[in-house]
Amino acid sequence: MSDTMLAVVKPTAAPGADVREVKIPAFGRTDVLVKVKVASICGTDLHIYEWDRWAQGRIHPPLIPGHEFCGEVVAYGDEVTSVKEGDFVSAEMHVACGKCLLCRTGEAHICQNVKIIGVDADGAFAEYVVIPESNIWKLDPEIPQEYASILDPLGNAVHTVLAGDVAGRTVAITGCGPIGVFAIAVARAVGAAQVFAIEVNEHRRNIATQMKADLALDPTKDDVRKIVAERTDGLGADAVLEMAGHPDAIRTAFDIVRRGGRISLLGLTSKPISLNFSEDIIFKGITVQGINGRRMYQTWFQMTALLKARKLDLHPVITDRIGIRDFSKAMERLKTGEASKILVYPNGTR
Amino acid sequence: MSDTMLAVVKPTAAPGADVREVKIPAFGRTDVLVKVKVASICGTDLHIYEWDRWAQGRIHPPLIPGHEFCGEVVAYGDEVTSVKEGDFVSAEMHVACGKCLLCRTGEAHICQNVKIIGVDADGAFAEYVVIPESNIWKLDPEIPQEYASILDPLGNAVHTVLAGDVAGRTVAITGCGPIGVFAIAVARAVGAAQVFAIEVNEHRRNIATQMKADLALDPTKDDVRKIVAERTDGLGADAVLEMAGHPDAIRTAFDIVRRGGRISLLGLTSKPISLNFSEDIIFKGITVQGINGRRMYQTWFQMTALLKARKLDLHPVITDRIGIRDFSKAMERLKTGEASKILVYPNGTR
Amino acid sequence: MSDTMLAVVKPTAAPGADVREVKIPAFGRTDVLVKVKVASICGTDLHIYEWDRWAQGRIHPPLIPGHEFCGEVVAYGDEVTSVKEGDFVSAEMHVACGKCLLCRTGEAHICQNVKIIGVDADGAFAEYVVIPESNIWKLDPEIPQEYASILDPLGNAVHTVLAGDVAGRTVAITGCGPIGVFAIAVARAVGAAQVFAIEVNEHRRNIATQMKADLALDPTKDDVRKIVAERTDGLGADAVLEMAGHPDAIRTAFDIVRRGGRISLLGLTSKPISLNFSEDIIFKGITVQGINGRRMYQTWFQMTALLKARKLDLHPVITDRIGIRDFSKAMERLKTGEASKILVYPNGTR
Amino acid sequence: MSDTMLAVVKPTAAPGADVREVKIPAFGRTDVLVKVKVASICGTDLHIYEWDRWAQGRIHPPLIPGHEFCGEVVAYGDEVTSVKEGDFVSAEMHVACGKCLLCRTGEAHICQNVKIIGVDADGAFAEYVVIPESNIWKLDPEIPQEYASILDPLGNAVHTVLAGDVAGRTVAITGCGPIGVFAIAVARAVGAAQVFAIEVNEHRRNIATQMKADLALDPTKDDVRKIVAERTDGLGADAVLEMAGHPDAIRTAFDIVRRGGRISLLGLTSKPISLNFSEDIIFKGITVQGINGRRMYQTWFQMTALLKARKLDLHPVITDRIGIRDFSKAMERLKTGEASKILVYPNGTR
Repeated sequence: MSDTMLAVVKPTAAPGADVREVKIPAFGRTDVLVKVKVASICGTDLHIYEWDRWAQGRIHPPLIPGHEFCGEVVAYGDEVTSVKEGDFVSAEMHVACGKCLLCRTGEAHICQNVKIIGVDADGAFAEYVVIPESNIWKLDPEIPQEYASILDPLGNAVHTVLAGDVAGRTVAITGCGPIGVFAIAVARAVGAAQVFAIEVNEHRRNIATQMKADLALDPTKDDVRKIVAERTDGLGADAVLEMAGHPDAIRTAFDIVRRGGRISLLGLTSKPISLNFSEDIIFKGITVQGINGRRMYQTWFQMTALLKARKLDLHPVITDRIGIRDFSKAMERLKTGEASKILVYPNGTR
Repeated sequence: MSDTMLAVVKPTAAPGADVREVKIPAFGRTDVLVKVKVASICGTDLHIYEWDRWAQGRIHPPLIPGHEFCGEVVAYGDEVTSVKEGDFVSAEMHVACGKCLLCRTGEAHICQNVKIIGVDADGAFAEYVVIPESNIWKLDPEIPQEYASILDPLGNAVHTVLAGDVAGRTVAITGCGPIGVFAIAVARAVGAAQVFAIEVNEHRRNIATQMKADLALDPTKDDVRKIVAERTDGLGADAVLEMAGHPDAIRTAFDIVRRGGRISLLGLTSKPISLNFSEDIIFKGITVQGINGRRMYQTWFQMTALLKARKLDLHPVITDRIGIRDFSKAMERLKTGEASKILVYPNGTR
Repeated sequence: MSDTMLAVVKPTAAPGADVREVKIPAFGRTDVLVKVKVASICGTDLHIYEWDRWAQGRIHPPLIPGHEFCGEVVAYGDEVTSVKEGDFVSAEMHVACGKCLLCRTGEAHICQNVKIIGVDADGAFAEYVVIPESNIWKLDPEIPQEYASILDPLGNAVHTVLAGDVAGRTVAITGCGPIGVFAIAVARAVGAAQVFAIEVNEHRRNIATQMKADLALDPTKDDVRKIVAERTDGLGADAVLEMAGHPDAIRTAFDIVRRGGRISLLGLTSKPISLNFSEDIIFKGITVQGINGRRMYQTWFQMTALLKARKLDLHPVITDRIGIRDFSKAMERLKTGEASKILVYPNGTR
Repeated sequence: MSDTMLAVVKPTAAPGADVREVKIPAFGRTDVLVKVKVASICGTDLHIYEWDRWAQGRIHPPLIPGHEFCGEVVAYGDEVTSVKEGDFVSAEMHVACGKCLLCRTGEAHICQNVKIIGVDADGAFAEYVVIPESNIWKLDPEIPQEYASILDPLGNAVHTVLAGDVAGRTVAITGCGPIGVFAIAVARAVGAAQVFAIEVNEHRRNIATQMKADLALDPTKDDVRKIVAERTDGLGADAVLEMAGHPDAIRTAFDIVRRGGRISLLGLTSKPISLNFSEDIIFKGITVQGINGRRMYQTWFQMTALLKARKLDLHPVITDRIGIRDFSKAMERLKTGEASKILVYPNGTR
């Protein structure tokens, strides 16, 4: 094994990224070194690449980005007991402090001292990545590698869908990026009676349809409120999963949720959102939830079990596969809005 | 419309039943008269027919039994507002008092003053049956009549399965009578990752397999505990749905549930059950639930939505279809253990 | 018994109200006629009196307002079974339809077809009021009459407090009108470790202090965010109960709730509220609930049990007691902001 | 600081225990060395002392018992970050593995690989004890030392009481050993409307009364079922907390719980328990929970907050205080049934 590896590197506080040889990272007594089989690109990676305001405030270059991946254990520290060489793994990249109230009461996914590998520390767009043992997620070899590389966003979807009752209910999803369409698959798998996808982008609506949404609506043309009412005896959707983060989508979410229903908010907003609390929340008696990350590790158990049981067909979401040297091309491709999930193969072997 | 109708009648406090002409029942201001399309036979009907100890203590002949059915509204009292002639309906046959603490806090399914139509009052093995408007359940005509006739036991299964988390979990079902195998279909529909059926009767195990249980085990031959452990990383089943009411099945339920899991008890027992509370319940930190009837009417909404969305294939359970004059033959057939659900057509038209 | 009674009447679509003799209302087969002992004035009554925009859109004069009261049963229809003459009663004044999904799934408090007695039909500022049997709430004679007259707003408080965990938690209440200060008493009674009251009006803060809030803060002078942080190890409040409906109070609620906490919204807003969903809801992983009315009838059971067990001292909230002829004076008194709960004695006997 | 300390030692696999000088234990990189201020004696310690069948199967002498204590941090390993010298602490003595499904899903209190300090490793009946940092619980100096020494059994009580709704409910407790009477205090503090204590031993009933149980019943003389029915409108108790582990107490628990209520089982049984599942569990629709340990660390946060807010008066439970050399006398005293909680002061300074 060589001392160096190929990695995507954000070298300085400016747009862009390089692919270059860097040192294979050192690992501590409680760490695991993983050879990356497949990594997957997230919208966050595009923010880092383009160096937008959020990135400027959060990222400290040089940084290897990448927080969605799977790989094989190649080495580990002397206090590690739960993995061995050759194990097929992914990881929860939110490293929680383990000591705050949230961590000590089963809410580590909203730990106030969290560090994210691939954002606050070197990540997975590289031949190797270092992960603390506590965050390693061992995988059954039956789970396909390409699915194993997207457990982070799939986990977002599982967490969001399962944050309330779904069985026999009507679920509406506003925003059909990768997490939105994963949520379609998950909602169907866990017994939603109807799943409505609401999305302005035609490519994304097409993927929603391939993921077997009962309806894929274009809010710029379809009367979403009326259609949802017609299909729910005038009541509205039992659950609305907001994945867009756009003011119009959020407005739709509050319009179509039924009395006593829930809105689960995952899509991040960059602008203030204005609501009529009396009409939108109080008289309807709804519940609005902020959803962040994945439950550590309840979501992982549920997600893995669904995958192993082949309850989720996620293929329509994976639109592109590239080698690591083409990372910048992938960024351009993402910007077109035509790609959904792009997989990166740092070790070249698909 | 004639004044009389054909009905199964339990005439006296003795085994057996007659099929005879009786008066079409009168209905009150808040009642609905329903022409029965299909009725379905329950194990309870066999207890009444055979006049066992339970029946002797509960039933006051003469009685028309039958508490699972669907039909068409033909008339109703002057205070009824929610149905009209020709509506396709079924009904919740547990008529709750509406005034006790249970009824007033959303727990009407365990009302302490409940009367059951078909047990405490004349039921549905007849051409017509009278149902209070409050208990009528209107159905979408898309739902097949034979499914509409078995909503009572299907509702038991839906209530039991949804009494805890199922998505991405391992569910074991002990006892594969009709409710047990319905529970297989429901558990699969709402995202169970694995469903194990445990049943001594070969006919029933075959139906369990047709309902797509992942495993159908014979506890007289298979090492159930070991097999469940092997398929759950040594942990045991997340949820065990006990549908048999037999001491051996109950012993199995406690043996195979994992720490922190749940056992939902639906199968009625006739003998005392002995447990080691420390080992069986306390150290494992499990939850044991008594399940009775169907939630009024949460279960009905969920069940209907799943059916309308075609998430449940129940055909393997319906093994026999008879005219009302063959009721006694159906009773004999049930006793063989070869039949599962037997449908009765009181108006002769399948 | 005379044919007529004294009542507060809103005669026409204009500000003000009369006190005049009107006919004692007729009652139907399922209704109960109650002689009003004590009625209590709500902010809603002031809106109706002043004929504001909300009142203009909702109220159809002539109307007898009043929806908080207790009294004695004097007569009832022939289908009524659960009360008898002389029973001491109050009532849930939200008359739900009983037939919609909400009503049939234990969520009648947000029934979409609700009618409110005292708003949509003649209410309790009168010597007699008619209530459907279904909505009558029988009371133990041990419960003081003046407490029995304020069960509607006390129920709002009980519903809000118990909409999430409170035992051993820190609860903050923004807005200390009657429901807000009731919530202080309830939160203390059910084991809140700390209760913070946040209110701009000095009279109301004084009542909050008398109700034994651990802190009564003036947001125009106190650094609420800092003080709450200091008393919660920097985390924030576990639950914030928003009772003010004012944009500043709502801003405070989102500022002081901890990660993973809940905000329960009861205070009605007349203006749009603007939030940064990412920072205010999503990253913090909080839950926001709209709270409406009282759970029918879970809240009533819990509230009555707490009162009967003498767990709630509500005296500081009752600031004024008047005869029915002084209704207009009471309205003026309310406007000063110095009064909290004003009790009306329509039959003159305190 | 000397190299040795005084400790209670179970030297061999036989009844009894010595008090002797032993080496102060060494601690690892992630451990904390605590100087024990107060330790408290549990029934388990008596089982170990008397060397009963359970002890023979579980304990590997030599062992220093003791799993309830508080003390002061005197030293710690180089990876410890969350405590410093002089900190006032107690500890969760169940050391969970951190790696099993239970540990990774917020259920560490039922970890299948748990080790208990004071049972499986040297404990707190000594001048010093070693605790892993993960299990240390820092305490506010305002919490009295004697309360700080009994957090383990108090936590059992808090866990049991808060395993379901209590506010405004009727709670019955069967068995009034220390945990049972702690549960009285906790249930009152979190808003139980009525608390009934059921206990055969007069000393224990007296303590229950001092803890302000609304009723302390002697099941050998009082008609418990009738009395509970009278005080609950014929319904029964909403929650029964079973703390006795005796067949008669368990029978009572099932007799007095209301339909839809819960029974939380904490008391360990040594004999099989026989139930009529149909009548006792299924028709009543009750929930039976096994309760084990304390939730890690939700229970600790709630318990500490209640203590800091002075919501719990526990003094009646502390009946004896001894120096460590009198350990064997304390064992004899416990056997009389007259003592409840006995505190031990290993460093001699009360």
